[in-house]
Amino acid sequence: MTMAALPTVGLMLGDPTGIGAEIVCKVVAAGELPVEARWVVVGDARHLDLGMRDAGVRIDWRGWPSLERIDWSDRALPLVDLANIDPAGVERGAASAEAGRLSGETLAFMIGEGQAGRLDGICFAPLNKGALFRGGWKYHDEHQMFADLTGHRGYYGEMNSIEPFSTFRVTSHIALREVTQWLTAERLDAALDLAHTSMQGIEVERPRIAVAALNPHGGEGGLFGDEELTLIGPAVERARARGIDARGPFPSDTLFLKARAGQFDAVLTMYHDQGQIATKLLGFGQGVTITAGLPTVFTTPAHGVAYDIVGQGRADPGAMRSAMRRAAQLAAAAVRRRARQAARTDPHHQESRP
Amino acid sequence: MTMAALPTVGLMLGDPTGIGAEIVCKVVAAGELPVEARWVVVGDARHLDLGMRDAGVRIDWRGWPSLERIDWSDRALPLVDLANIDPAGVERGAASAEAGRLSGETLAFMIGEGQAGRLDGICFAPLNKGALFRGGWKYHDEHQMFADLTGHRGYYGEMNSIEPFSTFRVTSHIALREVTQWLTAERLDAALDLAHTSMQGIEVERPRIAVAALNPHGGEGGLFGDEELTLIGPAVERARARGIDARGPFPSDTLFLKARAGQFDAVLTMYHDQGQIATKLLGFGQGVTITAGLPTVFTTPAHGVAYDIVGQGRADPGAMRSAMRRAAQLAAAAVRRRARQAARTDPHHQESRP
Repeated sequence: MTMAALPTVGLMLGDPTGIGAEIVCKVVAAGELPVEARWVVVGDARHLDLGMRDAGVRIDWRGWPSLERIDWSDRALPLVDLANIDPAGVERGAASAEAGRLSGETLAFMIGEGQAGRLDGICFAPLNKGALFRGGWKYHDEHQMFADLTGHRGYYGEMNSIEPFSTFRVTSHIALREVTQWLTAERLDAALDLAHTSMQGIEVERPRIAVAALNPHGGEGGLFGDEELTLIGPAVERARARGIDARGPFPSDTLFLKARAGQFDAVLTMYHDQGQIATKLLGFGQGVTITAGLPTVFTTPAHGVAYDIVGQGRADPGAMRSAMRRAAQLAAAAVRRRARQAARTDPHHQESRP
Repeated sequence: MTMAALPTVGLMLGDPTGIGAEIVCKVVAAGELPVEARWVVVGDARHLDLGMRDAGVRIDWRGWPSLERIDWSDRALPLVDLANIDPAGVERGAASAEAGRLSGETLAFMIGEGQAGRLDGICFAPLNKGALFRGGWKYHDEHQMFADLTGHRGYYGEMNSIEPFSTFRVTSHIALREVTQWLTAERLDAALDLAHTSMQGIEVERPRIAVAALNPHGGEGGLFGDEELTLIGPAVERARARGIDARGPFPSDTLFLKARAGQFDAVLTMYHDQGQIATKLLGFGQGVTITAGLPTVFTTPAHGVAYDIVGQGRADPGAMRSAMRRAAQLAAAAVRRRARQAARTDPHHQESRP
């Protein structure tokens, strides 16, 4: 059967010590899996079962030996069972290096499937970063892990999406004293390009991108800091010359009042806390974190494993639902982009999938 | 007549191009001048008159030739008329270097009265910082101006007070790339002492002071930045040893969620935007800015001159009201502190005022 291609998105249930499986099951059982994608759970059947028990729901699912073997006409949610995580052997509500090691293993398998063209996106429930690290996945954050495992060499970055805007960062998990040495013209250009294409990926055709200043009051005309004049302002001008609706730089303490009021679709920040202070105040629970710029789409809720409420059935699935929606949107956009590229190469091309 | 001393607080009507006089008159006419202080307007009678017209109110006021000559038993609001600002000669709703020059002149006069012991506090309506600078008052901010004009040599700092907490900063109007060189053990100690005594000044007897980390995630145990381990953490420990309820350092992106929830009375931030991004999102309109650590108390609304609504009678006096309340509290605390010091020197001392 030839059909317009739907992207395939893999669902990963998160660290088994946390609330991940519960919130995934709540969204699935409510019939809220976005229809713009085909969905498959990759993980362990026992972990999915635990999620259903936590959520107090039943899900119609069926196991398959591999992604290639799935019959997508089957109405049951497919599961590729790695049989690697037995939640009965894991203490819940506390960090576990072993759980981190196994979670990383599941992610690495899914990334391999993405590399092989069998997954367009990966939507994962909350992980425990410290557990991943102690479990042997020695990265500063999961974005670095994904970039490394996908063999990505170009620019990539973390995107945080809340209502009504998204944030991007030029620098992230580095010491504040090192921020200025990473603010280069090249990185600013790449970050603005990535913000522009990523916003188009979530269906904002001509995103209004506000660029944050680095210094207080935007440096007050060079009185305290001149990066706005020498570096950030020129990058905004270059972006505009490329057709990107970039604006600023704006002093960061009032910028988020404007973004909250709907004046911008995206904000490009210069350092981690500049954006995170605002986004966490504006909607911590509902935010989505996206790894932008990699060949495979990655999304996850911005919140964590919530050990204080594990196993109580009280976890709010709102951010998980949003993460799934973003994954479907971005993966569909990536499939369309690849189809356009293929069509330019071969005008008779029509992407098809079994 | 000998009586328990009330502090004297001077009201300054702000830059005449803005909404300052309007919001002062609204608070006074509503009978909301805090009773913990004696109040006197210092400025120009024509400017006060303009404020009454803008606000659509009448205030019972009486002019006096100087602060010394005021008969405080008179019920009318006293005004010391400097006759220096004729609003008819100033275009409103736009920055004016001349208005900045004159506003600085009024402030300088009031600071002199403070130095002479005739004012305990100065509460000023919004100024235009750029106009002050171009009018010849060459300071990065008004706090620097006040410290210079009072001849202050020790540590001082900006305090921002919103409900339900206040913020203090170790560094403020400097380039972000210079922040780390100003983060010293001495400045951290002084900032924690100032936060502690300032919070007591606004009647929080044992303030819970949260200290922000400098680096993202608080440096993640030294993974990206070690100031938390080498500098900020030890300063928190030293403060606790001095009897200050300091806590942290906490990653700054989640710290403000806790502060908003009422877990702390004060937050000490390491740099300008770290606190300002949060406080502006949490209550821009109602915030009060305080210059802490000087012998005279200074408070002002956190908002600006609001040129877009000048002369329309629509300005919200909420932050001005809060600034007056903070000025009265802090000035009363300063008077009590001086009385205790004098009593320790002379056990028969009783502070008295005419």
